[in-house]
Amino acid sequence: MGKVRIQITMSLDGFVAGPEQSVENPLGIGGMKLHDWAFALEAWRSEHGLEGGEVNASTPVVEESLAGVGAEVMGRHKFGGGPGPWGDDPWNGWWGENPPFHGPVFVLTHHPREPLVMEGGTTFHFVTAGIESALGQAKAAAGSQDVLIGGGANTAQQYLGAGLVDELNIALVPVLLGSGEQLLGNLGTDLRLEQIRVVEAPGVTHLRYRAVL
Amino acid sequence: MGKVRIQITMSLDGFVAGPEQSVENPLGIGGMKLHDWAFALEAWRSEHGLEGGEVNASTPVVEESLAGVGAEVMGRHKFGGGPGPWGDDPWNGWWGENPPFHGPVFVLTHHPREPLVMEGGTTFHFVTAGIESALGQAKAAAGSQDVLIGGGANTAQQYLGAGLVDELNIALVPVLLGSGEQLLGNLGTDLRLEQIRVVEAPGVTHLRYRAVL
Repeated sequence: MGKVRIQITMSLDGFVAGPEQSVENPLGIGGMKLHDWAFALEAWRSEHGLEGGEVNASTPVVEESLAGVGAEVMGRHKFGGGPGPWGDDPWNGWWGENPPFHGPVFVLTHHPREPLVMEGGTTFHFVTAGIESALGQAKAAAGSQDVLIGGGANTAQQYLGAGLVDELNIALVPVLLGSGEQLLGNLGTDLRLEQIRVVEAPGVTHLRYRAVL
Repeated sequence: MGKVRIQITMSLDGFVAGPEQSVENPLGIGGMKLHDWAFALEAWRSEHGLEGGEVNASTPVVEESLAGVGAEVMGRHKFGGGPGPWGDDPWNGWWGENPPFHGPVFVLTHHPREPLVMEGGTTFHFVTAGIESALGQAKAAAGSQDVLIGGGANTAQQYLGAGLVDELNIALVPVLLGSGEQLLGNLGTDLRLEQIRVVEAPGVTHLRYRAVL
């Protein structure tokens, strides 16, 4: 079996998105700054169909994080389009016709919807039966590969709180957002984390923890 | 001139002490867990008059943090004894007759008090004229050496927010406290931090940022 891992970028004050998220500003005020380290990388740009970029100490970390992923689970909020029923002209995600997932993505939602097949191998499956069901389906689809819990914060918290995560990978950036979507709130204090790896890179520290509940 | 630096241990969810701090439990519920990495170290134990302990990747970081400190500034809350006037039988700090500072310590307070001379070189000076005055006095006492802003969180925030800190050193531990004294709250988003060094050590990551306001 592969691992279940969270891979997320967090500000030094604990947020994965800034305040006032909107369709125009999906990461909220200041939230784009969280990802400057990634936007600069050749490894990230090529995955998103962009040219250029640099190679630095983040490169092997990003390559490793992209390798061996068999499926992803994400929250409805990350998929986007606002809450509520999907409607007649439904939102198809932030990522255009060829999303950067290239595999099955299981979207947690309260509202049923047929699977959405995109270009490049990405299919969005909409799961209304809860987080365990979504993870079970993702594991079945991933086979021996890893399942990524792709966020947002609320989804990450639910999986961490339920003890369903093996590995928490945080890209910690020296940015203060002040408010927004907090990653590690609402978790109580039962979750134990063991630090298993740290990589220093330009503008970011890559932290890896084993989660033990 | 020396640098003005903050040296503090923070939980992964952003707290430097847990909830419900008291005389019996000065670091609040769960707060002692923040310092397990330090308590284990020979370098920390010898500074506090204790024997034994281990040498690991934290050792040079701790030795470096203790070196070249000419004076410390701390808040009344860290000095302890509760708020309000000092009274006839005043609180003399948490640290016994021979505190681990071995130099001048400037305590921010609203209540005047004569300097308190302890064993081992520590003298507590009580400053009622505000954070700039306390820092000015500490710099004068430190000469060419560094001034440490010793905490707690509120004091650190005041100095960071006023642009008076050169270097923010955070020992980040994989502990969740859920609530308590938050280090980087209330800071707004103007403060810019540049990551300048990361050291991975057992149970802790030592982060160093240059503060630019």
